[in-house]
Amino acid sequence: MSLANALRPKSINRIEKGGASLVREDVVAVEEPLELRVAGHSIAVVMRTPGHDRELAVGFLVTEGLIRHRDDVVDLVYCRGGEAAPEENILDVLLAPGMSVDLARLSRNVFTSSSCGVCSKATIDAVRRQFSPLGRRTAPSRDVLFRLPARLQSAQAVFAATGGLHASALFDHEGRLIVVREDVGRHNALDKVIGHAFFAEQLPLQEAILLVSGRVSFEIMQKALAAGISCVAAISAPTSAAVELARESGQTLVGFLRGERMNVYAGTLAE
Amino acid sequence: MSLANALRPKSINRIEKGGASLVREDVVAVEEPLELRVAGHSIAVVMRTPGHDRELAVGFLVTEGLIRHRDDVVDLVYCRGGEAAPEENILDVLLAPGMSVDLARLSRNVFTSSSCGVCSKATIDAVRRQFSPLGRRTAPSRDVLFRLPARLQSAQAVFAATGGLHASALFDHEGRLIVVREDVGRHNALDKVIGHAFFAEQLPLQEAILLVSGRVSFEIMQKALAAGISCVAAISAPTSAAVELARESGQTLVGFLRGERMNVYAGTLAE
Repeated sequence: MSLANALRPKSINRIEKGGASLVREDVVAVEEPLELRVAGHSIAVVMRTPGHDRELAVGFLVTEGLIRHRDDVVDLVYCRGGEAAPEENILDVLLAPGMSVDLARLSRNVFTSSSCGVCSKATIDAVRRQFSPLGRRTAPSRDVLFRLPARLQSAQAVFAATGGLHASALFDHEGRLIVVREDVGRHNALDKVIGHAFFAEQLPLQEAILLVSGRVSFEIMQKALAAGISCVAAISAPTSAAVELARESGQTLVGFLRGERMNVYAGTLAE
Repeated sequence: MSLANALRPKSINRIEKGGASLVREDVVAVEEPLELRVAGHSIAVVMRTPGHDRELAVGFLVTEGLIRHRDDVVDLVYCRGGEAAPEENILDVLLAPGMSVDLARLSRNVFTSSSCGVCSKATIDAVRRQFSPLGRRTAPSRDVLFRLPARLQSAQAVFAATGGLHASALFDHEGRLIVVREDVGRHNALDKVIGHAFFAEQLPLQEAILLVSGRVSFEIMQKALAAGISCVAAISAPTSAAVELARESGQTLVGFLRGERMNVYAGTLAE
């Protein structure tokens, strides 16, 4: 990631307890809107860290279940919005000829339509049914998992500077880093990683390990499932719905992966 | 908050580096869907920590700019969705007779319609124009701000147990806690706090200080602005768009409020 895209200088007041107040230059993580369009139709505006926008766009569409194969997308083009908007903040995804997507499947509607009563079970069932079942895969080893946080940390360029970014990273079963992305939005960081795999024609990612820097919510597990990821590990805690979706979909879910121990909430690891 | 609502036991495997693996009972933060309806129309499904759902519903509507006064809402009723959904996960907001809300103003559309070109400036302008300007208010003192994190921490019941929740709290200018809410979603925690103020007829909250446990994004500042909150403080970092919105709307924004110092990104504090 280009640091120039991801960081912006701001003049701030640093106040020390007891009284000293100093004006200084600081940097903050850049957050800007990106409007996503599919064949000219606006489908979402996401607040994201600029950079890897093409990955973000296709990753978003993959995890919404709208596209699956590299061939589904012909091109991505920035639309310039006129004088008022010189920035490149509108990205249009051009689909393969003859291909149409059901825009009604976007998340808000996935959730809503699952409810003849919205209970967790109904929602989880609806999400699980939406995506292909996970294929056969090898369980990653616990020793490999213990090595990942240090590798993520050394690959995270911007977080160290601002404390303001979430990271998602894919590793192979030997613990080799495939790709890492940082973003002010943790869903965006994951979409970018999945978009990277989409362009590299690596989907479904059933032999990869996903490591996220923060917590694991239902939506993170849902996105991982959409990309076929069977093992998700996190530095921090999962929620109840994340654990339940992982167990029902056959995913491995590891939390509090730090230091000398980890918690396995779903699935199993090899010795 | 009831701990029984917010925590759920899960049987996990605790793996120690070097080999020991122990099955043990752990607790995770509960995350469940809540479908929000207005006068029978489904408007959103949010993944939230159950509890204070009524506050969440009205706080969401306030921060979307759809309602403003206590009188706008006549009642909130849970809808039971049939046999498949015994849980109370659908909440319908009944509006005052004759009142109608413009559902097209929901966020996705606010963002989208602001774009003849989505640049940050256009988005920020659109959001700022949507809400009343902040009224006159007193700047909070730096000494009061330094005292808030410890007070938030002692008021956070669930985070200590799971590490899985975000908190939002309102304090008055003497640093007295008005209300604190925890949720798996940080936007939800803020909506609940604002919903609490809505029911107490305390909106707009121009003399209150909002403290959030995590980072401050554009959307957090936007929700604070919708509730008339003029001072937002955070334990962690703000994004560029949060700083820019704060400066343009006249809000005070403090980040990295911890230990012996803080960063003031927008506005001023009293000595």
